[in-house]
Amino acid sequence: VMGVNTRPISTQLHAAADYVPKEGEGKINLLIDLESPKVANMEEMSSGKKVFCRCWLSGTFPLCDGTHVKHNAACGDNVGPLIVTVKSE
Amino acid sequence: VMGVNTRPISTQLHAAADYVPKEGEGKINLLIDLESPKVANMEEMSSGKKVFCRCWLSGTFPLCDGTHVKHNAACGDNVGPLIVTVKSE
Ligand code: FES
Ligand code: FES
Repeated sequence: VMGVNTRPISTQLHAAADYVPKEGEGKINLLIDLESPKVANMEEMSSGKKVFCRCWLSGTFPLCDGTHVKHNAACGDNVGPLIVTVKSE
Repeated sequence: VMGVNTRPISTQLHAAADYVPKEGEGKINLLIDLESPKVANMEEMSSGKKVFCRCWLSGTFPLCDGTHVKHNAACGDNVGPLIVTVKSE
């Protein structure tokens, strides 16, 4: 239930063993909850807007604090946040 | 308006120039919209749940397709998705 991947766990583990990382692929989380086996975050919203970090460098993770701007400038990357708005019906 | 960082742009650019990347920090987006200066995504929700990718490797970006499992296994990383639920009031 951790994603939209509905394959059996045994198939996922097999796929992981066969996975060929992309050139340059490596750890992207150097800061957040490093002792956790997997950092997933559950967020419940009822209205308004939230800006969520996807660079793993925010001081306010899981929210974005703008650090992606510094990361992009330093590394030539082009990452940015996810902005979720809840539409009142 | 791209984050919660409300400092003037000039201050942000100065900070970026002074930014010291963490050890091991580098490009984390190797796949998604590489020609874009910054990949930000706006998502509007009115109900239900969505699982959003934060590993930049999903075939269904900005949604998570489970590829973070393979990435973590291959790289020793511990990243996972952001799960947003909208609470009906
Ligand atoms: S601080 Fe990480 S995406 Fe903005
Ligand atoms: S596929 Fe990227 S976080 Fe799940």
